[in-house]
Amino acid sequence: MSVSTPPPLPVSRLGHRLSAEPVITQLMRQALQTPGLLSLAAGFTDNAVLPVEMVEAAVARLRADSPSREFLQYGSTHGRPGLRAATAAWLATYAGEEALALDPSQVLIGNGSQQSLYMSAQLFCDPGDIVLVEPPSYFVFLELLKGLGLEARSLPVTSEGRIDLLAFETALQTWQKSGEIRRVKMLYFMGTYGNPSSRCWPEEDKVGLAEVLSRREFVLPVIEDMAYRELWFERPWPARSVLSLPEWRNLPALYAGTFTKPFSTGLKVGYVASHCSEWVEKLARIKGHQDFGSTNFNQAIVEEVLRSGDFGRHLERIRPSYRRKMEALDAGLREAGIEELGWHWQKPEGGLLLWAEAPDDWDTSLEGDFYRMCLEEGVYYVPGDLCFGEGKPRNAVRLSFGVLEEAQLHEAARRFGAAARRYASSVRT
Amino acid sequence: MSVSTPPPLPVSRLGHRLSAEPVITQLMRQALQTPGLLSLAAGFTDNAVLPVEMVEAAVARLRADSPSREFLQYGSTHGRPGLRAATAAWLATYAGEEALALDPSQVLIGNGSQQSLYMSAQLFCDPGDIVLVEPPSYFVFLELLKGLGLEARSLPVTSEGRIDLLAFETALQTWQKSGEIRRVKMLYFMGTYGNPSSRCWPEEDKVGLAEVLSRREFVLPVIEDMAYRELWFERPWPARSVLSLPEWRNLPALYAGTFTKPFSTGLKVGYVASHCSEWVEKLARIKGHQDFGSTNFNQAIVEEVLRSGDFGRHLERIRPSYRRKMEALDAGLREAGIEELGWHWQKPEGGLLLWAEAPDDWDTSLEGDFYRMCLEEGVYYVPGDLCFGEGKPRNAVRLSFGVLEEAQLHEAARRFGAAARRYASSVRT
Repeated sequence: MSVSTPPPLPVSRLGHRLSAEPVITQLMRQALQTPGLLSLAAGFTDNAVLPVEMVEAAVARLRADSPSREFLQYGSTHGRPGLRAATAAWLATYAGEEALALDPSQVLIGNGSQQSLYMSAQLFCDPGDIVLVEPPSYFVFLELLKGLGLEARSLPVTSEGRIDLLAFETALQTWQKSGEIRRVKMLYFMGTYGNPSSRCWPEEDKVGLAEVLSRREFVLPVIEDMAYRELWFERPWPARSVLSLPEWRNLPALYAGTFTKPFSTGLKVGYVASHCSEWVEKLARIKGHQDFGSTNFNQAIVEEVLRSGDFGRHLERIRPSYRRKMEALDAGLREAGIEELGWHWQKPEGGLLLWAEAPDDWDTSLEGDFYRMCLEEGVYYVPGDLCFGEGKPRNAVRLSFGVLEEAQLHEAARRFGAAARRYASSVRT
Repeated sequence: MSVSTPPPLPVSRLGHRLSAEPVITQLMRQALQTPGLLSLAAGFTDNAVLPVEMVEAAVARLRADSPSREFLQYGSTHGRPGLRAATAAWLATYAGEEALALDPSQVLIGNGSQQSLYMSAQLFCDPGDIVLVEPPSYFVFLELLKGLGLEARSLPVTSEGRIDLLAFETALQTWQKSGEIRRVKMLYFMGTYGNPSSRCWPEEDKVGLAEVLSRREFVLPVIEDMAYRELWFERPWPARSVLSLPEWRNLPALYAGTFTKPFSTGLKVGYVASHCSEWVEKLARIKGHQDFGSTNFNQAIVEEVLRSGDFGRHLERIRPSYRRKMEALDAGLREAGIEELGWHWQKPEGGLLLWAEAPDDWDTSLEGDFYRMCLEEGVYYVPGDLCFGEGKPRNAVRLSFGVLEEAQLHEAARRFGAAARRYASSVRT
């Protein structure tokens, strides 16, 4: 039987947008073609500290304690009631959030937190609509918006990267006058150790944002993505979340969190929580079409490690480990001498990422010479321009310290520095 | 602090459609309000035979054999290479499919098979488009289409429920003349033990369908959903799948399968496979936005039970169990005397469902008296009219025998019969 090529697929308009190749896939493929590379690109966690023993023990306890075997059965679309309650209780362990009185019906479990970001964009936006994001913002979220035909527009920020509330209020007034406000449907920010910037939002900025939004006559749903909240180094970021700030109580705000990053990325259990039960319920209905519930087994494991306290013990173990890795990368970059070339960065206080900026005239994009030189030196990163809705400055990089060991991070930083020196001298000549 | 009600959410046109309450949710809520009910509605599997020991042993082996702990790390969007290869190998164990030479790149792992049905509808259809389905068809799939703004249209069938190929060819010609064919974007059928009918497609019907489609100048993507294929009672259904039939080789056809139903519904690991690599690749890109990969841990467990042979051993154990349950329900319904009232059904040869039809003038819908009487007797079911795109005959029911024990199935059938007798006499008077 001869195997001939079938005709091209009749892909829909929607399908064309949704199935465009993400830039990051191009990046990964390009990188995989070059052997021996050290990756500062992948946002993976550290294999060495993955909680295999805790997971194995949790599975054994589930087997022993559940004669009904229900943890291997379908769950509900909303997620396990026990896990939803445990999630609400976990959020209330943060300082200032003790009074958080979430009903389990205000928590929805998903496949990581990504799924609920996707479904929220579907819930509020039609093609052509606008979502407000931080500059820089999470590039997978930006790709998701693009796939749904949405425009990501940057919030105005100060020189330190904080939201510029005055400028934002002015922008809202301008958009209201022009009528463009009718296309502005959602606002997305990362409250703690943002991806890619590792910046955190001071409480006063969240309060200020709520005040600006409360003064307008339209309703703007807001997502605070807290995927990295648990991964602090020295102390938890002190700002309360939108869930506990009284100024947010009457605004539709969704908290997106995950047990994936802080515990095990292989389990893919995330959640959203909101006092706006309508938002949560509508996401559950959309989820009913997509998969009618995330894996009940993994939810039972997470519920069990929260119950037993293993979750907290795991965090205590990994925080110093990620901190050492961050220090290794930071020290490596300093030793590599890139500060002398005009690079600068803030030392992250948590998370898995370091955001470094070169002088304005550098080009760190995928098509640029610096990226090529890094590949030649045996290291790669996520180009900063992928992390912007518009504007797309080309002088920054996102460096992950989650995966590599300390010695590898030193070596990766050395290679990065070698590429930077080559680039600087090539520009000079 | 007073808790006042926030204003209504500014839901988009898309969001309104997607977040409409599914009929099945209404059904479940209604049922939950009545204590002591026996459910013939839920399509769950049997807790008693869930493979907790096999899963626990697989997790222990993974821990022992994987010093890199990678199975608790993120996987790739496409799924574990080992599981994709093992899935291809599993499909080639079916009689007549030994020559199936799927490359792992032609297999995509998802959150159950549902997710890939959803993404395929996104890939090929814009709102207003038409998807061809069997009458009756899987009601969750029909809800999914409705959510995406799509029309489910029934394939013409013979009196035995087989596809009427002549009538289908005529319909295609009519739609081509009227131009309506431009909205027909996908065809979905269940090859084995269909939900809800438990019917199987003879090989000649699949071949005939391919021949009809090959004669047209347009390309129609076809999905063969094989979610229940492994759950045969006496022998596997002998027809080859679209993957192995030469007539399908140049048509875009997707095989949807799952390890959820036959092994553990709590793991939510499904897959799709196609010789049309473009289809698989485009689904992977869409999946990149929704969750960038299903839980790597559960994929590793399934890969391990396939490798060890535990998957096959589990199937050998559960097949007689489900067969006994089917026999219990079948015998119970006969003993309840509903045949004398004009009900008839085919004894399923596999799967978890029994589709029974009353005389044409019965009304088994959610709003009808029969459903209410069943609730009063302490039993409920999925009304058959939910399983049709259009037409929606109201004289059938979907009865699940997956969950209840044999004695409970007898009792549920007795209650069902009591309701039927009450209904019959109420109509007569």
